[in-house]
Amino acid sequence: MLTRNLLSVNVPCLRGFSSAAASFLRTGDTLKLSRIFTSEDVLEYSKVSHDSNPLHFDSESARNAGFEDRLVHGMLVAALFPKIISSHFPGAIYVSQSLHFRLPVYIGEEIVGEVEATNIREQKNRCLVKFKTACFKNGAIVIDGEAMAILPAPAVEQANTSA
Amino acid sequence: MLTRNLLSVNVPCLRGFSSAAASFLRTGDTLKLSRIFTSEDVLEYSKVSHDSNPLHFDSESARNAGFEDRLVHGMLVAALFPKIISSHFPGAIYVSQSLHFRLPVYIGEEIVGEVEATNIREQKNRCLVKFKTACFKNGAIVIDGEAMAILPAPAVEQANTSA
Repeated sequence: MLTRNLLSVNVPCLRGFSSAAASFLRTGDTLKLSRIFTSEDVLEYSKVSHDSNPLHFDSESARNAGFEDRLVHGMLVAALFPKIISSHFPGAIYVSQSLHFRLPVYIGEEIVGEVEATNIREQKNRCLVKFKTACFKNGAIVIDGEAMAILPAPAVEQANTSA
Repeated sequence: MLTRNLLSVNVPCLRGFSSAAASFLRTGDTLKLSRIFTSEDVLEYSKVSHDSNPLHFDSESARNAGFEDRLVHGMLVAALFPKIISSHFPGAIYVSQSLHFRLPVYIGEEIVGEVEATNIREQKNRCLVKFKTACFKNGAIVIDGEAMAILPAPAVEQANTSA
């Protein structure tokens, strides 16, 4: 889902993406995605990341550490950011990401990930975009930070150039 | 694996962890772990993160973007940091992580993750530790940044206190 700030500045360097919603990216534009993480997600993420911290598997350990129950891995929740960016801009190259884990994420909670384009710089046939990134539950920030990504030249423009 | 800087300062707040290597953490101490990411890892990570950027699955897309071949997800490689911390300090709570993706990681490459304790602050029965974090391939940095984590009170000390 893309929402647009009416005061945003149009930067046409992304024109031509196949997704109509992403045909232009302007500063102030926000892309959102919600997800509910399951117990199965936590298990599968643990297998592939090799991270088996008991806070993710043992409710008692989590409660002893001051949480309500076992936690979803913060890095799995944060993976919403590159997911959102690359699903709108396939081929996007991730340059940096800062992450502050503010609140715990529990299994079954609805998490809304948001990335907002705060700066767009054209470089040859690519765009270097700075995003403000945040995840929310019930309106409260659970993770925030910033990301930088290089968005590729639109496929349509490449095709026109090589024709 | 834990390596120790001879000039490091001893901070005894972590005394009593079950792992002998981690019974003390001192500023300057470095924990390391190496891993080779496979095609299966990329597939499984993509399933759980829902991130199916073509740079991870399509060699031609990756080459067109200037890479040698398809890439391992940067956030999967970065998951080495919490894995290293939580495997030495089970129950560690991740507070923040910054990530700069400097070089691509390809399937089959050996990646060495390192976290170095740069600051340790005691807070009640916990320690807030700042880590310098980096991943290397053939000695070159592929990801760097910083992490903050809260390390729990040693299980042995808790047992002694409640006895």
